[in-house]
Amino acid sequence: MAVYTQLGAEALAQIIARFNVGEMISAKGIAEGVSNSNWLIETNQSGSTRFILTMYEQRTDVSELPFFLDLLDHLAARGCPVPRTIHDLEGNSHCFNQGKALALIEFLPGVSVSEPNPAQAHAVGEALARVHLAAADFPATRGNSLGLADWQALIAGCSAEGLASIDPGLAGLVTRELAYLVQHWPQGLPRSVIHADLFPDNVLMLGDAVAGLIDFYFACTDITAYDLAITHAAWCFSDGGKRFDPAVSQALLTGYQAIRPLSEPERANLPILARGAAMRFLATRSYDWLNTAAEALVTRKDPLAFARRLEFYADPKNSAIFA
Amino acid sequence: MAVYTQLGAEALAQIIARFNVGEMISAKGIAEGVSNSNWLIETNQSGSTRFILTMYEQRTDVSELPFFLDLLDHLAARGCPVPRTIHDLEGNSHCFNQGKALALIEFLPGVSVSEPNPAQAHAVGEALARVHLAAADFPATRGNSLGLADWQALIAGCSAEGLASIDPGLAGLVTRELAYLVQHWPQGLPRSVIHADLFPDNVLMLGDAVAGLIDFYFACTDITAYDLAITHAAWCFSDGGKRFDPAVSQALLTGYQAIRPLSEPERANLPILARGAAMRFLATRSYDWLNTAAEALVTRKDPLAFARRLEFYADPKNSAIFA
Repeated sequence: MAVYTQLGAEALAQIIARFNVGEMISAKGIAEGVSNSNWLIETNQSGSTRFILTMYEQRTDVSELPFFLDLLDHLAARGCPVPRTIHDLEGNSHCFNQGKALALIEFLPGVSVSEPNPAQAHAVGEALARVHLAAADFPATRGNSLGLADWQALIAGCSAEGLASIDPGLAGLVTRELAYLVQHWPQGLPRSVIHADLFPDNVLMLGDAVAGLIDFYFACTDITAYDLAITHAAWCFSDGGKRFDPAVSQALLTGYQAIRPLSEPERANLPILARGAAMRFLATRSYDWLNTAAEALVTRKDPLAFARRLEFYADPKNSAIFA
Repeated sequence: MAVYTQLGAEALAQIIARFNVGEMISAKGIAEGVSNSNWLIETNQSGSTRFILTMYEQRTDVSELPFFLDLLDHLAARGCPVPRTIHDLEGNSHCFNQGKALALIEFLPGVSVSEPNPAQAHAVGEALARVHLAAADFPATRGNSLGLADWQALIAGCSAEGLASIDPGLAGLVTRELAYLVQHWPQGLPRSVIHADLFPDNVLMLGDAVAGLIDFYFACTDITAYDLAITHAAWCFSDGGKRFDPAVSQALLTGYQAIRPLSEPERANLPILARGAAMRFLATRSYDWLNTAAEALVTRKDPLAFARRLEFYADPKNSAIFA
């Protein structure tokens, strides 16, 4: 959480002048996003006057921006609560300032809850299902750069001593689970564009209603039900993955299926998809934990929160939650 | 620039519910202020709907908050463009959450310019003079905790080797200048509440007009014209203190005197007051430079930017700028 690039008011005003949104009257650097700089911008035009200006720093491959930004426009046009991108005077969804890409997107109200209740989880399930349906005719595709092969590569990038330094049982857990996932990862399930990172951080809520789904920068083409599994892993645990909330889980799954009922193969595969989801975050967090300098600006996230989820999902007696 | 305290949406909403401002519908941590956490809060009440919530971390002495917050209300009531404080349902200008003090203040539009032009400096001069006039009947007083004796103590807290590590000439400069200031610091000039830190960062501008004066947390009772000298040092130099801008200087002084003409003793003492202003920031920056861990969240500011201003103001041939 940081503003990586310092831009003066004059420079920001010049950037905003490239869009047909009025004159900038306020600009606040906001502490959101782990790898981009973001400003909340206000202009003097009538009607919609607030925007998020994102400057893409490291991590984001600029050649992929059209996929992410066009997806927002596609989903917004179909009524999904995602921010529209504001195109510049030349019609571009992103432009450049001193070599860095930037995009202006609609500001949406709402807050990110940290302790979701069942009603909120139900609404998030519905919203996710609507995204999957609305994305069906999105023409572009993007491979998942954090799929099974990448989990293996990330774990291979963590030495056994490194993993042991996080937890003595971690190397055994990931070896066992990766072998299982390689053997059993489902083939032939319906695929679509997925959000792939729908944590509570990335949902803006007004009370129990979803006001916005944001941060699509991990969106990709993958197994549709895997997105529900990721969202399940992201929403249904508290206390560092130690406590599973069955009511939130049930509400999320019910909400999703109220809009897009799962096929029987999808439903039957939710347990392994959830193990994959837990492994995906365990792999990236373990890698980042061992390869991020302690004094870096980015806060390292605890890998064990997802090791616990992985153990939960791998326990056969917990499969019933997806029944 | 940081949000030091992480507060979830639920905790923030509970805090906002202590005020009669409607329900919170948006909260963004903003990258402002060097020692407090700040959120831009939006609520659903009609009329004014945006606020800055400040949580006071280190550095701010809670017993002094009534001085700072009452001063805002006093100045706002007299038409100065400062944010009003929002009192809680019990009438308090600040309250507490988990032991930390917090205050809700009005959001003001405007941006902080980084390259002020003469018209903006003129407007800031006028606004500062209006603050001085409006503060005349403010009943409370607060000693300046960064006065001459404190500059001496701060410099004493920098070893000669430390100062030499910043610049070989720095120890000589501060020794010479502190001796001069001790000998010649003016007595008997008009005193009032002063802002004491009116850098461009702390002024919100809409075009060439002042929309807001903010961050009064160094405000204190001291020589009124010293505040103009601080503002001069803060606004009239660029390029790390290397370039003096005579047009900005002239505009600032003219704007100030259009509202509050300086007495002859005040005017005659501007050169030494400006030397004091430069020494004040040189002293704090040198101390912080040598005593702040390089990896701290707070960005260290270059002391030499004020060493150069000090040399500029100490050069007799530059006294003419205040004539």
